[in-house]
Amino acid sequence: MSDLDPPITAVREVVRRALDEDLGVLGDITSIATVAEEAPGRGSFVARADGVLAGTLAAGEVYAQLDRRVTVEWLRRDGEEVMENTAFGTVTGPLRALLAGERTALNFLGHCSGVATLTRRYVRSAHGKVRVRDTRKTLPGLRALQKAAVRAGGGLNHRESLSDAVLIKDNHLTQLGLGPAVERARLRWPGRPIEVECDTFEQVAEAKRVGVDLVLLDNMTPEQVAEAVALLDGEALVEISGGLEMMVMGDYSQAGVDFISVGALTHSARQLDVALDLEPGA
Amino acid sequence: MSDLDPPITAVREVVRRALDEDLGVLGDITSIATVAEEAPGRGSFVARADGVLAGTLAAGEVYAQLDRRVTVEWLRRDGEEVMENTAFGTVTGPLRALLAGERTALNFLGHCSGVATLTRRYVRSAHGKVRVRDTRKTLPGLRALQKAAVRAGGGLNHRESLSDAVLIKDNHLTQLGLGPAVERARLRWPGRPIEVECDTFEQVAEAKRVGVDLVLLDNMTPEQVAEAVALLDGEALVEISGGLEMMVMGDYSQAGVDFISVGALTHSARQLDVALDLEPGA
Amino acid sequence: MSDLDPPITAVREVVRRALDEDLGVLGDITSIATVAEEAPGRGSFVARADGVLAGTLAAGEVYAQLDRRVTVEWLRRDGEEVMENTAFGTVTGPLRALLAGERTALNFLGHCSGVATLTRRYVRSAHGKVRVRDTRKTLPGLRALQKAAVRAGGGLNHRESLSDAVLIKDNHLTQLGLGPAVERARLRWPGRPIEVECDTFEQVAEAKRVGVDLVLLDNMTPEQVAEAVALLDGEALVEISGGLEMMVMGDYSQAGVDFISVGALTHSARQLDVALDLEPGA
Amino acid sequence: MSDLDPPITAVREVVRRALDEDLGVLGDITSIATVAEEAPGRGSFVARADGVLAGTLAAGEVYAQLDRRVTVEWLRRDGEEVMENTAFGTVTGPLRALLAGERTALNFLGHCSGVATLTRRYVRSAHGKVRVRDTRKTLPGLRALQKAAVRAGGGLNHRESLSDAVLIKDNHLTQLGLGPAVERARLRWPGRPIEVECDTFEQVAEAKRVGVDLVLLDNMTPEQVAEAVALLDGEALVEISGGLEMMVMGDYSQAGVDFISVGALTHSARQLDVALDLEPGA
Amino acid sequence: MSDLDPPITAVREVVRRALDEDLGVLGDITSIATVAEEAPGRGSFVARADGVLAGTLAAGEVYAQLDRRVTVEWLRRDGEEVMENTAFGTVTGPLRALLAGERTALNFLGHCSGVATLTRRYVRSAHGKVRVRDTRKTLPGLRALQKAAVRAGGGLNHRESLSDAVLIKDNHLTQLGLGPAVERARLRWPGRPIEVECDTFEQVAEAKRVGVDLVLLDNMTPEQVAEAVALLDGEALVEISGGLEMMVMGDYSQAGVDFISVGALTHSARQLDVALDLEPGA
Amino acid sequence: MSDLDPPITAVREVVRRALDEDLGVLGDITSIATVAEEAPGRGSFVARADGVLAGTLAAGEVYAQLDRRVTVEWLRRDGEEVMENTAFGTVTGPLRALLAGERTALNFLGHCSGVATLTRRYVRSAHGKVRVRDTRKTLPGLRALQKAAVRAGGGLNHRESLSDAVLIKDNHLTQLGLGPAVERARLRWPGRPIEVECDTFEQVAEAKRVGVDLVLLDNMTPEQVAEAVALLDGEALVEISGGLEMMVMGDYSQAGVDFISVGALTHSARQLDVALDLEPGA
Repeated sequence: MSDLDPPITAVREVVRRALDEDLGVLGDITSIATVAEEAPGRGSFVARADGVLAGTLAAGEVYAQLDRRVTVEWLRRDGEEVMENTAFGTVTGPLRALLAGERTALNFLGHCSGVATLTRRYVRSAHGKVRVRDTRKTLPGLRALQKAAVRAGGGLNHRESLSDAVLIKDNHLTQLGLGPAVERARLRWPGRPIEVECDTFEQVAEAKRVGVDLVLLDNMTPEQVAEAVALLDGEALVEISGGLEMMVMGDYSQAGVDFISVGALTHSARQLDVALDLEPGA
Repeated sequence: MSDLDPPITAVREVVRRALDEDLGVLGDITSIATVAEEAPGRGSFVARADGVLAGTLAAGEVYAQLDRRVTVEWLRRDGEEVMENTAFGTVTGPLRALLAGERTALNFLGHCSGVATLTRRYVRSAHGKVRVRDTRKTLPGLRALQKAAVRAGGGLNHRESLSDAVLIKDNHLTQLGLGPAVERARLRWPGRPIEVECDTFEQVAEAKRVGVDLVLLDNMTPEQVAEAVALLDGEALVEISGGLEMMVMGDYSQAGVDFISVGALTHSARQLDVALDLEPGA
Repeated sequence: MSDLDPPITAVREVVRRALDEDLGVLGDITSIATVAEEAPGRGSFVARADGVLAGTLAAGEVYAQLDRRVTVEWLRRDGEEVMENTAFGTVTGPLRALLAGERTALNFLGHCSGVATLTRRYVRSAHGKVRVRDTRKTLPGLRALQKAAVRAGGGLNHRESLSDAVLIKDNHLTQLGLGPAVERARLRWPGRPIEVECDTFEQVAEAKRVGVDLVLLDNMTPEQVAEAVALLDGEALVEISGGLEMMVMGDYSQAGVDFISVGALTHSARQLDVALDLEPGA
Repeated sequence: MSDLDPPITAVREVVRRALDEDLGVLGDITSIATVAEEAPGRGSFVARADGVLAGTLAAGEVYAQLDRRVTVEWLRRDGEEVMENTAFGTVTGPLRALLAGERTALNFLGHCSGVATLTRRYVRSAHGKVRVRDTRKTLPGLRALQKAAVRAGGGLNHRESLSDAVLIKDNHLTQLGLGPAVERARLRWPGRPIEVECDTFEQVAEAKRVGVDLVLLDNMTPEQVAEAVALLDGEALVEISGGLEMMVMGDYSQAGVDFISVGALTHSARQLDVALDLEPGA
Repeated sequence: MSDLDPPITAVREVVRRALDEDLGVLGDITSIATVAEEAPGRGSFVARADGVLAGTLAAGEVYAQLDRRVTVEWLRRDGEEVMENTAFGTVTGPLRALLAGERTALNFLGHCSGVATLTRRYVRSAHGKVRVRDTRKTLPGLRALQKAAVRAGGGLNHRESLSDAVLIKDNHLTQLGLGPAVERARLRWPGRPIEVECDTFEQVAEAKRVGVDLVLLDNMTPEQVAEAVALLDGEALVEISGGLEMMVMGDYSQAGVDFISVGALTHSARQLDVALDLEPGA
Repeated sequence: MSDLDPPITAVREVVRRALDEDLGVLGDITSIATVAEEAPGRGSFVARADGVLAGTLAAGEVYAQLDRRVTVEWLRRDGEEVMENTAFGTVTGPLRALLAGERTALNFLGHCSGVATLTRRYVRSAHGKVRVRDTRKTLPGLRALQKAAVRAGGGLNHRESLSDAVLIKDNHLTQLGLGPAVERARLRWPGRPIEVECDTFEQVAEAKRVGVDLVLLDNMTPEQVAEAVALLDGEALVEISGGLEMMVMGDYSQAGVDFISVGALTHSARQLDVALDLEPGA
């Protein structure tokens, strides 16, 4: 149970669904036709590009569910860097099983490592001046795996669901002003962090006045952000969000915010290109 | 039941899981604290960038599962283009329900439309000279939705699983030569298409000799591809694959191949930026 | 909620699985390619042989899950006879949906009606002298539907599972004699019926002595059965079982037994041939 | 992973459901009352009639899920013949577990072997002149197991679902003629096999003209079939279908068709009678 | 497979759900932050009050699902008494896993042991003069575990569901009198026990006349119960029910009834206070 | 979507399981035998004791899943008080459906209202001086419903799972001291509340020093608690926990703590006695 792993129960379920999807009604009809039932095999998981590894728990679970005779060993762990054309794991067992699980295992590794790699790039762009967080903009059914991959990349996890923290946005303020809304949230859900999205200095001041835990600044220039940070004067954590291009992160990092939350980490990561180089024989 | 929709049973299940993920144990605690229970609301789904719409069946299902009083209407259909800052759908109902389903509905719309939009770009790059197909490199649990989004973008669907067509690659040929492997596959699974991956002209010639249905050319230059196409002389469909950059598609399109299969459509699509503009009141 | 229906929760689940199986990842690709999306259709469920109807709840649920615009009406109810080339139900709605659900709906109707029809034949062969019961020899995942179909055919339901009644067979008597085994079962599970399988008169006498509720006679001729019935003298219900051919049922019916349990009802019923005659237009 | 096995993920799920059905809320109350908790047992799976074995993966999984201390060994494999009163497998472990799983394991073995045995009979009747295929007329929830059993009997698998091949029947031709329908299907789903059902020579000629992959002849006499085969002249595979009695298969086999698809393999197979002969002691 | 265990398939499912509930999307974030990944640990399950143990199968399954490296050993078995501040089991393995499963395992042990303990108290109050049974008043999703816990406490299990026995109450008699209702139930479901709720002597006499298996007396004083028992004269088992306080059980026990069914066993049991005393190190 | 409701997706799933449990394989065999299929009925949900209502969403869902012709109306809402022998809801529809769902609906109402009622009693005992919270000591599979019921009773919800807040207890401090543990937790999970369990004043001082959000005082007398509160001087919220009897709550309420968390709310609530008074006719 690494701190970079998703909960095993979530992994088991998503792997089961992924195998169902890929095995269909008949199973791997190509391998059945072309590979002898008892032929042994071995393979290496190889990165085809530099990146950050994630998803090994799921990839291992693919083979655990498929055939208990398969053994998987990892040369790198989630969160470690892998290099182009370098092996980061091995798998040994019946060749048919290795083939049947290949695509599913790679889909997990490629996607999770893609998320981790993108996260790492954002983290690096931040130069330690600000911490990078994910959002709830995750792909349906993959939240636990994606949030673990963000951790593997060095990012932090924001809310896991609508249920674990209060985050008041414009849409919540159609009936109440910001102050009363915060009051009611604190009254109903005391002990939980309260975050408020602000796009004016008035809102920032109001948020400070009512004592929120985090302020999420939206649609502000780096200069405005710096001013808001100064206004808050350390009385709340500050987060910025939105469709940030990586190149402008530096500007915002200088502004003194605590977090940058980046939806792209989970909704727009390209996969890391990974492959399974198989060879017959034990 | 549009031909661009995924099967409704698959949609229902993935929406159920997505809502479970996002509602958690307590539900939308922010809306509960800040919005009156019976307050009505309405909203517009708006594109924040140009793209191709997909995922409306799933987004509608989000609200159907959440609260039957919510009504969703689409101004555009899957496969149609949406333009930046233009509404493509509306949603009406209790404001709390609109808020509780907002992120989940947008996650479906953003991801599916992202896949459709990327597909459309590949299709356009092909200038009608070659058809674009997806692969089995889909995100776990999302295959049916992603393959429907590829169709919405104008692409074609390759195999749905390991179970519906034979595709012989290097890894299958460790014990049998290409010819015997094809023979065995045809004997066991007659009536199903047989595709063979070739990276030499010898393999192409052999594939032609044994009468496969499709040849998948790997690691060849556009010139080599053209030569392979000539060699096959129309006796098999020809597909190329791999990490094709869009800019080189033109070269390959000229080479006379039938299909280009692009894993990136499903494993590396950026989301289309979509938002829900909410307003209170009926 | 007819007494011939299986529980709706069980029906909903098995229909969901069946649709998943048949729609696959892409859905009904033939109809998508050949039938206009909005084309209306209507059809009649028609029997291609005489038989007893069952499975209408499941067939209706198929269309309810597939497309809410489809309307199903039944001209016959479960348990009623249907005649060759006669319609027993109609279905109206989008033609694509009618086609997409056709095979799944027919699989339910054909199988359940097959079970009901075979049951009816056994019931008729019994000439009212003995009652026909099913067994736990059901097809995996279909027990609730099969047991409902047996009721539709006029049969009775034996145990639903290992959990609802005691049935002591040879295999349970390796450590205890019949008397002590019955004592222990009665002590642990008082209020539940206790049935004992007997294949000798000594066992029958012992079963009578310890006061079991039912005696299951195994491997006895009709004459021996009659003798056992006389021996029991009404102090227990009597059941016979095993691979009874229908033609010998008459002999056993005369022997005075209460029940004949027939595994074939559920494990070996041929389907009733049913079809959906579709026509385009509303 | 034998080529006669269904996908393990499908097996695991159907076994789980079957055990749920049979264990109920309390479990095996008869064994609990009559058999000591730690009593060891062993048993032999025995055929009570000649047939072809199938379903061993599922039967083994029953005991794997029930109690890990149980060991199952198979003396015959799926696809091999078993003979009346001959053991084909053994099971060792706690007697209570052997009893609790007995009926569920036998239900899988009996049904799957029944399908395999019936398939083998059709295959034999075909005298190698034509190949026998299954259909989508499978029992709900059991498709993967039934299709594997057909393979065990020597048959071939037709479509796994509506999603993997195009099969155009009368009902699809209410709006388009056969030629345009084939064109549209080929355009939308290129690379997938296209089969067309024909019941007139005109349709056969049209099918030939538009170049379909398979022709399914319906309601023709053996003589008509032979004429259609001649007309097609090898340009499409030919299949016949429908409620074929085995006795007429010979006539059709002579007609030169490639496949006979038989719904009865999966919708009307009688179970193979199998039993578990248990004995106490290790 | 003890006779005090629930079916393993039911346990596996409820444990999976419980772990899902408690691990959430991120897992045990506290242990991740504070405990080294490979730190070993061991712990003792300790009772904080005297009681009767139950739920060990589920608690063991919690750790089996969480981390296979964890070993659980029980010093007491279900149904045995545990004493305040005394260990009844040990658990060894990675400290993080022990912590992650702690609350879930304790929730099962505390609740099941609470049910068993309350049952034992009722059983003791009955002084062997009457047997204590549970009801269908179980907590949703926990019936199999609760009914096993009742057995661990020395109680008996009444109906498992609406499906396994007939129990006619007032609400069923709006259209038929008691006699005809019993006749119809016996006709439709012969071989199943028929129980009738009676609150007048007339009903008791009628129940006796039609030969029911059990009579459930409702709203009668101990004296009335004794009179009803005398009236029945051994021709049916007698049960009393309702909101019985334990203190009055003695009075009813004297009245000669066979069973007292107590809904409180499962709907109102306080948990038994149990804890996991953890210590680091192997 | 009331703020006292659990998420509808969680409700739907637990109701489905509860109905499965209670309908079994055959359904409600008593009603089938004794009540005419089309007989209408109506009933009133009645409290048999004073209490606080909860669980109406689940009870309504029971009938929605069972038979869409059933209409449920609530005279009281969750969180409102119900009085002995007073109706709080009505249900109308086919009598068989009313009977089939009766026990399941009552099990939800009785349990949830029991939790709400017990919570209300604790809340009242606190005299507004301290707020009452639940714990993770919930019954497996029922967390979302129980936490909603706590809200209905006027209580607050503590953590929903291990995943949404940090709570450091003794068991987490075997390798790190309190200060370093808090540092690491804050570093890894910034923005989430950090709570620390303290049982000495030294720990309290240390917790204050490192700036935790909440302090959970364990095993302290009211006087010690007051001293700890004074020591913290408003720099952290203070919670007390443990097996608090209601009678001592007053003492602790005076001590100035913010929260009292009470495991008994969810692990040891007696059900509220509720009944469904049915009558035939529309």
